[in-house]
Amino acid sequence: MKPVAVRNIERADADTVRGLAELGVATVHEAAGRTGLLKPCIRPVYPGARIAGSAITILTQPGDNWMIHVAIELCRPGDLLVVACTADNTDGMFGDLLATSARAHGVVGIVTDTGVRDVCDLKSMDFPAWARAISAKGTVKKTLGCVNVPVVCAGQLVTPGDVVVADDDGVVVVPRVRAGEVLAAGRRREDSEAETRRQLADGVPGLDIYRMRPGLEDGGLVYLDSLDDLEQDR
Amino acid sequence: MKPVAVRNIERADADTVRGLAELGVATVHEAAGRTGLLKPCIRPVYPGARIAGSAITILTQPGDNWMIHVAIELCRPGDLLVVACTADNTDGMFGDLLATSARAHGVVGIVTDTGVRDVCDLKSMDFPAWARAISAKGTVKKTLGCVNVPVVCAGQLVTPGDVVVADDDGVVVVPRVRAGEVLAAGRRREDSEAETRRQLADGVPGLDIYRMRPGLEDGGLVYLDSLDDLEQDR
Amino acid sequence: MKPVAVRNIERADADTVRGLAELGVATVHEAAGRTGLLKPCIRPVYPGARIAGSAITILTQPGDNWMIHVAIELCRPGDLLVVACTADNTDGMFGDLLATSARAHGVVGIVTDTGVRDVCDLKSMDFPAWARAISAKGTVKKTLGCVNVPVVCAGQLVTPGDVVVADDDGVVVVPRVRAGEVLAAGRRREDSEAETRRQLADGVPGLDIYRMRPGLEDGGLVYLDSLDDLEQDR
Amino acid sequence: MKPVAVRNIERADADTVRGLAELGVATVHEAAGRTGLLKPCIRPVYPGARIAGSAITILTQPGDNWMIHVAIELCRPGDLLVVACTADNTDGMFGDLLATSARAHGVVGIVTDTGVRDVCDLKSMDFPAWARAISAKGTVKKTLGCVNVPVVCAGQLVTPGDVVVADDDGVVVVPRVRAGEVLAAGRRREDSEAETRRQLADGVPGLDIYRMRPGLEDGGLVYLDSLDDLEQDR
Amino acid sequence: MKPVAVRNIERADADTVRGLAELGVATVHEAAGRTGLLKPCIRPVYPGARIAGSAITILTQPGDNWMIHVAIELCRPGDLLVVACTADNTDGMFGDLLATSARAHGVVGIVTDTGVRDVCDLKSMDFPAWARAISAKGTVKKTLGCVNVPVVCAGQLVTPGDVVVADDDGVVVVPRVRAGEVLAAGRRREDSEAETRRQLADGVPGLDIYRMRPGLEDGGLVYLDSLDDLEQDR
Amino acid sequence: MKPVAVRNIERADADTVRGLAELGVATVHEAAGRTGLLKPCIRPVYPGARIAGSAITILTQPGDNWMIHVAIELCRPGDLLVVACTADNTDGMFGDLLATSARAHGVVGIVTDTGVRDVCDLKSMDFPAWARAISAKGTVKKTLGCVNVPVVCAGQLVTPGDVVVADDDGVVVVPRVRAGEVLAAGRRREDSEAETRRQLADGVPGLDIYRMRPGLEDGGLVYLDSLDDLEQDR
Repeated sequence: MKPVAVRNIERADADTVRGLAELGVATVHEAAGRTGLLKPCIRPVYPGARIAGSAITILTQPGDNWMIHVAIELCRPGDLLVVACTADNTDGMFGDLLATSARAHGVVGIVTDTGVRDVCDLKSMDFPAWARAISAKGTVKKTLGCVNVPVVCAGQLVTPGDVVVADDDGVVVVPRVRAGEVLAAGRRREDSEAETRRQLADGVPGLDIYRMRPGLEDGGLVYLDSLDDLEQDR
Repeated sequence: MKPVAVRNIERADADTVRGLAELGVATVHEAAGRTGLLKPCIRPVYPGARIAGSAITILTQPGDNWMIHVAIELCRPGDLLVVACTADNTDGMFGDLLATSARAHGVVGIVTDTGVRDVCDLKSMDFPAWARAISAKGTVKKTLGCVNVPVVCAGQLVTPGDVVVADDDGVVVVPRVRAGEVLAAGRRREDSEAETRRQLADGVPGLDIYRMRPGLEDGGLVYLDSLDDLEQDR
Repeated sequence: MKPVAVRNIERADADTVRGLAELGVATVHEAAGRTGLLKPCIRPVYPGARIAGSAITILTQPGDNWMIHVAIELCRPGDLLVVACTADNTDGMFGDLLATSARAHGVVGIVTDTGVRDVCDLKSMDFPAWARAISAKGTVKKTLGCVNVPVVCAGQLVTPGDVVVADDDGVVVVPRVRAGEVLAAGRRREDSEAETRRQLADGVPGLDIYRMRPGLEDGGLVYLDSLDDLEQDR
Repeated sequence: MKPVAVRNIERADADTVRGLAELGVATVHEAAGRTGLLKPCIRPVYPGARIAGSAITILTQPGDNWMIHVAIELCRPGDLLVVACTADNTDGMFGDLLATSARAHGVVGIVTDTGVRDVCDLKSMDFPAWARAISAKGTVKKTLGCVNVPVVCAGQLVTPGDVVVADDDGVVVVPRVRAGEVLAAGRRREDSEAETRRQLADGVPGLDIYRMRPGLEDGGLVYLDSLDDLEQDR
Repeated sequence: MKPVAVRNIERADADTVRGLAELGVATVHEAAGRTGLLKPCIRPVYPGARIAGSAITILTQPGDNWMIHVAIELCRPGDLLVVACTADNTDGMFGDLLATSARAHGVVGIVTDTGVRDVCDLKSMDFPAWARAISAKGTVKKTLGCVNVPVVCAGQLVTPGDVVVADDDGVVVVPRVRAGEVLAAGRRREDSEAETRRQLADGVPGLDIYRMRPGLEDGGLVYLDSLDDLEQDR
Repeated sequence: MKPVAVRNIERADADTVRGLAELGVATVHEAAGRTGLLKPCIRPVYPGARIAGSAITILTQPGDNWMIHVAIELCRPGDLLVVACTADNTDGMFGDLLATSARAHGVVGIVTDTGVRDVCDLKSMDFPAWARAISAKGTVKKTLGCVNVPVVCAGQLVTPGDVVVADDDGVVVVPRVRAGEVLAAGRRREDSEAETRRQLADGVPGLDIYRMRPGLEDGGLVYLDSLDDLEQDR
């Protein structure tokens, strides 16, 4: 891998990013056609945050956080760090000092396929992080990687400038050029869900709302009155 | 597997179920003779809930939550959904819409060997869930499974109508016909523990309370004065 | 393994232990030359605690917590239980009764490479625990192990009397004879970090503070203006 | 759990068992309606064996193989040991001595949700084993469990006398009363697969053999001529 | 995700593909600048195969192998199936029937981020497979995915037509346009390694061949005569 | 961690080492009082080897194999490399070039808590390796670690010069000063096992050979004639 850092990237419109944050991960994932979800091993280090930002992508080597320093300098307000690694690694590549630096450059949070540390400080600072692990293990600054090239983070391709949405449900990435369309689809989905939710709260079975009874019949679902009928049957 | 849904199941007495919830998972597990505990990979999606309910069992296919819709229609107040899957799967099969529907039918919570989503909403709704994973990944409604047949969930056989108890320690299942006996044993255990706890709080060694010193001697435990004696010895 | 319990161990000075607790795991790990960190699978069972204590080491057999009872009798105020096991095991070897007993002997917390239970009670009691798992599964008292011999817990050698520091970042062990030196180094580190943090908060790039630009150049990092330049380049 | 050993169990007909062994795991699993498959973490300790036998079920405690000794005495020619454990455990509960004993009682192999050891000897003896792990760790004989009660092994309920089939694809369990029916279905499946295999070998697309083209159209599959059309499309 | 199948892809030159197969995974990975390696959870289902082919990419849903049928029809001699899935899934999506079909279309092997089955038959047929798991579990044909779009398989982006090399060391993917350059670099590497290997076989320390002694000194490596010197030192 | 390499270590007698190799891992582990076994995640990269050697210990950083080069220069005939790492890491730190170098210095094999590569070559060379993973991923030579200091490898403390035994059952470490005593105990165990094996092969139940029947009775094992008796009982 040739070590490269790309200075300028295209970003989605700030209002669109804010709108996607409001929708949250589950709705955005659905609105995007069920694409872009990072693996569920990536978890928030403290609960309750919901953010979105423009991806600054970082490819690191195991045990080495050098490229995060390179990346922060290139960040602008509203950016979100996305860290991938060339091998599975849980080292604490990001802590309160880097969070202080990142915040000074306007970074709204971090998503990393490695570990983070100083999680108590991150929470006090209200600097949200999503990670594969929490580990106090420090890292070196010896081997170069890349900044702002396409990376695979927790099973998803992330291109610099993509919109990344993160909350307690996990993390989803939306290609920059699709951000507006996904936002619109997500809002439509929310509207239609409101009516569905009302019906469900009234006790109308989902089987009726979603018209699933013919499918059950086609699939051959057999209703039995009791478990005894099942035993007989076998 | 022949797709089947059993409409009517026998349930334990509501007072018994309530009593088991009060005891909590660890005590119920002991009172049941150390049986029925689900594997510890099943964790609460938010801390602090403690519930019990009658198991409505659901067997799903990976990536498919169709049968949960079928199950909810068959639920009664006090029921608890127990979801198994034909293969390891972390998809978010249950979220705020299904929780709304389930609550409308009196369901008290869900235990699933898959993933759940909308965890922030579940917490706001105070609808407790225990799951293997949290994942925003949506599921399809294409392949039938079963409702209210015996299933294996996280390593335990669960029969429809069994009492399931869940709290921050995990999840335990009690066969319906044993529920009363286990409740009684659990209450006796709590009573006897109260006295033991008092003694332990006074500093009486467990070795004396539980009369374990003869066993230590039989087993050949050697007390040394210091680590230096150990080194000499080796 | 010959079953042995060592009665008397040397402990670090109480002020030193307290000082290390104040520094926290990440700083102590750095100050100790990046040694002594337990694997990140060991997590706090509830967030927010930060403690340090003198290690009382316990080697158990899978499914058996007998030696914890033996150990507690030998504890003194300020001690911290460190439990290792001869095989991977998630059973709930420690719960509210043992916590009550441990507290009566002055124990400040537990770190275990197995499971714990009664986590809701542990939190109410404010008795902190770090564990590989939470499991209500009970254990027997049948097979002897050792107390206060060197053990490997979650990948680290722990010698009786070592100082163990634990917080939301995990757990680190400091050899007793190095405790004072590590405390001093940790305080120096905190002082120097304060100035660094101020600069970072002002937006000074870490690349400048840590003088990393020459290294980037030596390593051959290429800055590109945009992602298009990268494509061309390949 | 009350320690119990059941002396006599009903077994499937020997010819049926032999027939199921010949079909192999994948075919039997299909013929049984895709039920009964143990989780894929259970692997053969050496490749190439394919067996079936009547399940002698054993429930052990972690680190304790006492009940395997109890079970072997109750075995008859054609039996197969199925070992479950009350907690996840990888200890080497079964090795060449127990294999010698088991063989003397006619046992054809072992499936265990724990570890085995002496795998080089097992291979020399041609005594096949399927296990979660290989581990030389020895076990004690201190805590009782059960023999010949229903157990959950690697996610499947196994009842004593069920037919267990095991090969390089894993392990499947067939309820005793369904064994004949599953054998017949498996043979029909093999016959029909022969013709399918011939067509596939001739290059006829599965899409045509299985008449899947209308489904593709209904599902909305779009064929594009090249990847460039996809980019345009997005 | 919009279900799409792309009929025509560009492929690397057959001689280049053959050359990369001869180099093997480790050399190709190095020659490609240490890029493109799939995660090590992907293992050969039987040892000893070494192949390369042009990637036909397939994106499946968990528990569903429909798109593999769609893909095979589009294959040409020298192609290699690369299967990704929208969620972690170990189901046996590929077995001897599909292998028969694939071979009839000239497919040289399969790499899948799911499970395979009939591994004994695959070995007899000499049809090599690399997979995350071996599982007899069958799959349905209900939900569409994609063929020949870029996918992430075991942590790596694979674009249709990329060259995939697989052997006992794992799997590496080389972008089609870089295939020739990587082949050349790999051959140069092999040549230079031959001389290095000769020196190493003669006992010349790697420290001298790679001129690493100055680096050791700069890094501050201290040579001690014996372990006793270390103890003194601490 | 201060980077240190210790040149001279004490080794066990060559005949003792050879004797331990002949006993194999399971017997040595038992003879050593069930101590010293590495975790079962460490597996041979090809089956069939059985070796023992004097441990040359190596502590590496994730993604960095520099210290293996440093170590090999210090090896003597009969030595065995034992590689630990400061964090979980699966990178291929050792391959055919290092094996060539190691063999030239008389090294008999390697045990590593990381990955290895070129496994096909290692097998051809008959150079046995035990590892946590197989991975073609290359490593850098940037950060120093230690050679010949005590390390924790896969959960066990290994001191330079300890005897390490490895075969298909895994890896066990015997402290150098205990090697002779363990060899003697292992041979006694083998002798006594021969008689036991003969009896077991004759069908004498282990329950009689090991006189376990009184224990079963004390423990309260209940023999039932059939599973029906169990149902009644519950």
